[in-house]
Amino acid sequence: MTSKDKKPEPNDPSIIVSRVSQAIRDISPYSVPRFDCKIRLDGNESPFSLSKEVQDKADRVVKEIDINRYPDSEAKRLIEIISGVCDFPKGGILLGNGSDELIGMLITTFTSGTGRILCPTPTFSMYKLTGLAMGAEIIEVPLDEKFDIDLDETISMIENNDPDLIFLASPNNPTGNMYSASKIAEIVSVAKGIVVVDEAYSDFSGYTFLPLVKECENLVILRTLSKVGFAGLRIGMLLARGYLVSEINKVRYPYNINSLSQAVAEVVLENHKFVTENIQLIIRERDRVYEALSVLEGIEANPSDANFIFFKVNDADAVFSELVQRDVLIRNFNRPGRLQNCMRVTIGTPQENDSFLSALSEILSS
Amino acid sequence: MTSKDKKPEPNDPSIIVSRVSQAIRDISPYSVPRFDCKIRLDGNESPFSLSKEVQDKADRVVKEIDINRYPDSEAKRLIEIISGVCDFPKGGILLGNGSDELIGMLITTFTSGTGRILCPTPTFSMYKLTGLAMGAEIIEVPLDEKFDIDLDETISMIENNDPDLIFLASPNNPTGNMYSASKIAEIVSVAKGIVVVDEAYSDFSGYTFLPLVKECENLVILRTLSKVGFAGLRIGMLLARGYLVSEINKVRYPYNINSLSQAVAEVVLENHKFVTENIQLIIRERDRVYEALSVLEGIEANPSDANFIFFKVNDADAVFSELVQRDVLIRNFNRPGRLQNCMRVTIGTPQENDSFLSALSEILSS
Repeated sequence: MTSKDKKPEPNDPSIIVSRVSQAIRDISPYSVPRFDCKIRLDGNESPFSLSKEVQDKADRVVKEIDINRYPDSEAKRLIEIISGVCDFPKGGILLGNGSDELIGMLITTFTSGTGRILCPTPTFSMYKLTGLAMGAEIIEVPLDEKFDIDLDETISMIENNDPDLIFLASPNNPTGNMYSASKIAEIVSVAKGIVVVDEAYSDFSGYTFLPLVKECENLVILRTLSKVGFAGLRIGMLLARGYLVSEINKVRYPYNINSLSQAVAEVVLENHKFVTENIQLIIRERDRVYEALSVLEGIEANPSDANFIFFKVNDADAVFSELVQRDVLIRNFNRPGRLQNCMRVTIGTPQENDSFLSALSEILSS
Repeated sequence: MTSKDKKPEPNDPSIIVSRVSQAIRDISPYSVPRFDCKIRLDGNESPFSLSKEVQDKADRVVKEIDINRYPDSEAKRLIEIISGVCDFPKGGILLGNGSDELIGMLITTFTSGTGRILCPTPTFSMYKLTGLAMGAEIIEVPLDEKFDIDLDETISMIENNDPDLIFLASPNNPTGNMYSASKIAEIVSVAKGIVVVDEAYSDFSGYTFLPLVKECENLVILRTLSKVGFAGLRIGMLLARGYLVSEINKVRYPYNINSLSQAVAEVVLENHKFVTENIQLIIRERDRVYEALSVLEGIEANPSDANFIFFKVNDADAVFSELVQRDVLIRNFNRPGRLQNCMRVTIGTPQENDSFLSALSEILSS
């Protein structure tokens, strides 16, 4: 040993202190307390799994996979199918291990200008978390009182900070509403960097910015299979101009979509009638649950274009634990500030939604 | 539109030029020319898929997955099984979507000191590629004439550059040999940053640095299921001190291991007798193929501790295309410099190896 004196002591944090950014050291370890409830309306998942017919097809296809071989690095067949379903050129499509990975790839690729990322707040937490971990500066612009984009403030922040990336989740999570289309279009036109419209929930709004990609060089669309019945597969989709996709593709890990998920996603998308029907059912249920929440005393529900509803109560912590006692799990966002006493319920099956609504009425009336 | 004049023109590369690092712009798009050969000995995959019995178990388990639900974010059951198989504490294990993702997570976490990554060369290309994409500076130290670590030069580079991360693949890819254990130990003791020993191929060498983790704070071990029969699953494993794993875990995407791969990996590792038997068979075949190559005129084969053999011929491009014509695909590394006329053949089934050897003899003798 030439320099034993330099060696860190057991569990000496010197390695971390000297090699890990302050931003990462400041991240609190992600851990969600576990509640084993029968009715799980906390994760914005679809309550519907594969139909019997599609399950059988998937089983047959999975059985045939040579799992000892690497997956198709370019996921050519799956991208071809997505190209057909989305009516979008293959060369403009990139897949990620969930949108999470695509967000990371976008940040890795595009933050060497000003190093700044802008997003409205509150929104999906991974934009900020991943940005901070990768050394970017995050600029947060509060949403207006209706949880829509505050256009004047946003434009002014864009003009003053020239962000490399702007993340707009529409419909937004956790608030559930779409942003005004005209505001998004304005931001895309003003921004000199990349504007990402994250359409994770757009299947439930029926509105997409995809056609705008043809006109707007700097627009990137994110989609996912996670909200429409396939969260277990981890398939995120990025759609943009081919020359941008080529650049992002350079930072993609060559085999980022495993063989099993590729195969099952192909089956699912080739047989997506049942997916569309499930989405329609969830939309009808969402509207029904929203109506029911709106007439409840002590609830302030935000109109939803997604598969969940964001609402405010007088005492979210109490409502949450009372619901858990009744075997219903939803998401509690309660923290000081804008999200005080706010909660989010995912739309489940009609029976699950009924259970949630009756448990909630019971809790509020007691 | 408040500033239409700033909008990029169609396919105007101004976005890329102004937001993408020079390092990423310089990366050539990754594309491997495709050859549809029957005998594929190019990817360092195992030639053996699941045994019938394990396949049946896997099929049953996969059928039961609720694919509409997110995977277990912490992959608790799989980590528990790995902990048992590796005899290593659960809190010191982290999973990635292949080792590729773990390499990225290590670079994201640990390059905020000097921003430098050191690795011997030639080695696995992802250390350099991912490092460059993420803005690190790469220091390459040529291996010695036996493809072992040049210790004096490496120590001197470490002392002068204080790299945040050092990547040592042992057995090394593409050369196939292990580095001297004493040299690795010396590097671990001298380095003040993190030393990653990538043991992707250690199942074929029977040697591991895992016990050294107990003594060495800064040692991180990488393993993978890709080389022993499960490349399609994309399961990489990182083993290190718990407090380092906690830090790396902060930059992990919450659902990075999909439900299908988790379930199949659990089945495979709970029934790993067939895996061990396949490894033994591959080791025997590797030694046989090495002996056969050694007696061939015009071949210089490097001793191998892995599931592939690195060798030099007089005209690699000619040998490669002649092999393809005979339906045998291997990897051609031919490029100016150290890898001139170098090739790599993965060990396949006995029949595949025979086909490769007889095709090669035929080519060399003509």
